Amino acid sequence: MKLYNEHDPAPNPRRVRIFMKEKGIDISLVHTPITKRAHKSPEHLARNPLGQLPVLELDDGTCISESVTICRFLEDLHPEPNLFGRDAKERANVDMWIRRIEFRLMTPVGQIWVHTHPFTAAVATATMGKQFTDYGEANRKIVDSACHLFDKELGNRQFFAADRYTVADIVAQSTFDFARFIGVDIPENATHLRAWYDRVSARPSATFDVPEALLAAARSARG
Amino acid sequence: MKLYNEHDPAPNPRRVRIFMKEKGIDISLVHTPITKRAHKSPEHLARNPLGQLPVLELDDGTCISESVTICRFLEDLHPEPNLFGRDAKERANVDMWIRRIEFRLMTPVGQIWVHTHPFTAAVATATMGKQFTDYGEANRKIVDSACHLFDKELGNRQFFAADRYTVADIVAQSTFDFARFIGVDIPENATHLRAWYDRVSARPSATFDVPEALLAAARSARG
Repeated sequence: MKLYNEHDPAPNPRRVRIFMKEKGIDISLVHTPITKRAHKSPEHLARNPLGQLPVLELDDGTCISESVTICRFLEDLHPEPNLFGRDAKERANVDMWIRRIEFRLMTPVGQIWVHTHPFTAAVATATMGKQFTDYGEANRKIVDSACHLFDKELGNRQFFAADRYTVADIVAQSTFDFARFIGVDIPENATHLRAWYDRVSARPSATFDVPEALLAAARSARG
Repeated sequence: MKLYNEHDPAPNPRRVRIFMKEKGIDISLVHTPITKRAHKSPEHLARNPLGQLPVLELDDGTCISESVTICRFLEDLHPEPNLFGRDAKERANVDMWIRRIEFRLMTPVGQIWVHTHPFTAAVATATMGKQFTDYGEANRKIVDSACHLFDKELGNRQFFAADRYTVADIVAQSTFDFARFIGVDIPENATHLRAWYDRVSARPSATFDVPEALLAAARSARG
């Protein structure tokens, strides 16, 4: 089994790596550099026609893409520690929160990235004709509103979806890590959400795989 | 158990209703009219702080939202007929396709709806300051590209994620039903995708809960 991977700050491979560390699973990583368009090569498109990372390749050649799907598959193989919920109700709560986080936070963060950052100008032009910069900027309001919704929810509990850390926290955490990288911070008055972010970021699994200085340099180079 | 529901053409409640019919599950439906803002009432926001439909309320008062999460929960309670996959690999394939359909098709269809339709002008203004009409229109390219990707995949199989109808088909089918309602059709040259759509639409579970004439009138009234 191997995982086609890209280093931080790429958010989706990071999500699976955090999950693997929390599970204590070791899978060999195949570096697939986005800057060299390795994710759009014919070899990789055969693994995932969407040309995205990460992809988990099984020993029989089966390829599984989509970060949360890969985590779900790994949970099937390695049930402990449980990260997707222990019974039907807990599983539903974790799944519901994953979706809320992806649709309300990750999607608008992605739109800010695609429509306002110089690095993604070519992608936006290829897929939509141009970057819609004003639209990209307006997504900050959606992110802000999601942060305040999450902040209110985290006012009465420590984690998103259960009385312990789950994959819903990983999905949120990896999204905020990336959001910070592109200059979108958690609002200062979202104190419960900030406390949650500090809490999950202190876990050993949260370590970045590139030097913090390099991430900081990349951050300051953003447009 | 009851399901807070809205009639067709609302895509997410429809998704759960198709799933229930395929399973032969009967749950009482509570009509929650969007046109009367019932989904934004304090009572409903207590069920789902995002103010969306559908919501499944259990007998103990637990509320589960997010259409796919509700289906997943119902599959836990009623495993047969299986709609989410029989083993780890099949489950992964179904989950991967759900995500591809939601991110590549449902999200841009939603953006066309929110940013180009008169009915959603107030929502777009409240959440983002205004409707970004050109951006909304440009999403037609993303939808078109997703349709051709799906068409290619369906060239060598009957259903999206397995050798039989699964929840991935329900997610795609309910999205295309809604897309057609807002005037976004499957491209004529996507013949495999069109054949798949005809095939799933012929299932007894695909019946609409409002008269076709009323849907057609709503279609022609779109801006």
